Amino acid sequence: MQERAKETRRSLLEAAAHLFAEQGYAATSVNGISARSGRTSGAIYFHYEGKEGIAVAVVQSRFATWSQLAARYADDSVPPLERLVALSYDIAHALAEDPVTRAGARLWAERATINASLPHPFALWSAAATRLLAQARLTGHLNAHLRPARTARALVRAFFGLCALTEALEGTAVVTERLTDWWHLTLPSLQSQPVREDSQ
Amino acid sequence: MQERAKETRRSLLEAAAHLFAEQGYAATSVNGISARSGRTSGAIYFHYEGKEGIAVAVVQSRFATWSQLAARYADDSVPPLERLVALSYDIAHALAEDPVTRAGARLWAERATINASLPHPFALWSAAATRLLAQARLTGHLNAHLRPARTARALVRAFFGLCALTEALEGTAVVTERLTDWWHLTLPSLQSQPVREDSQ
Repeated sequence: MQERAKETRRSLLEAAAHLFAEQGYAATSVNGISARSGRTSGAIYFHYEGKEGIAVAVVQSRFATWSQLAARYADDSVPPLERLVALSYDIAHALAEDPVTRAGARLWAERATINASLPHPFALWSAAATRLLAQARLTGHLNAHLRPARTARALVRAFFGLCALTEALEGTAVVTERLTDWWHLTLPSLQSQPVREDSQ
Repeated sequence: MQERAKETRRSLLEAAAHLFAEQGYAATSVNGISARSGRTSGAIYFHYEGKEGIAVAVVQSRFATWSQLAARYADDSVPPLERLVALSYDIAHALAEDPVTRAGARLWAERATINASLPHPFALWSAAATRLLAQARLTGHLNAHLRPARTARALVRAFFGLCALTEALEGTAVVTERLTDWWHLTLPSLQSQPVREDSQ
């Protein structure tokens, strides 16, 4: 029974995520989620208290919690700035490819039209980036003029804006390439000694 | 008569912009725009073909056209990278303070829920930034490893994301401060010879 309830919730969540990611919140209905999942509308009200509830659950399950990225973040064998860069590619990949993460990001962008309070990952990302920058500072790899918390906040917002706007203007296929352009523009400022071929 | 029509259009546009900026597209009605402007609903249909039409006109009038910033952009007496930085503060200020620009940005963010094709300023901003970076390259002020067009595209997207996410998370009052944090993180990479107090 417990297992069956879990399976029902998972199947509803995935159907809802698919529809939210493709059509947005307004165009997705409880009936549509029911049809796609093969479950009854009643199940959606029972397990999630309706469309607002399942939208919150979609945002919460991946986009806002970031749990799938924790392993990369905690790998102490990799230098902190390298871990920061690698994390950004992982997140960009999830935002472009994973349907539940995509749906979460889209719902968050449409939050003004949703009658529920939606969680977001930005405080979590900033805290993780702050810790990585502080570690880089301790080992002398961070430009000494940068303050970790302020820098992390600017990095997270610029990074997310880059991903979101690239997807809106050009589609998901080029997000990784644009992210690389952005790091070319950002990483030298972060590092304590930018290595440049043109320096004497 | 011509003047009267212009005045009617201006008053409708401003009333609509105020409501779109504060409430968003879905919560704003033709009746609400009529009530705020003191004009009839008929005037909205006559001059703008209804709510979609006036939304497009709001986006087009400031956010997507950027005309108020042209003077700053064309001032050849200021070095190109300085002009680029100054322009970013002008745009951030307009996004935070000018009701019609704010409304345009909000409508663009809500474009998935609007049954009309909305223009945006990003190609224009990228073209302007590309030209400024190309000028900086000619005068030897741009890091020689950066390509102007790619760099401009990344700059514009990161910049807009920073402004939009800062407003969403903290409100408009701190946008300028966060923009300064971002430039600290970005400008040294752009410049051909980053000047740092810690360099030997």
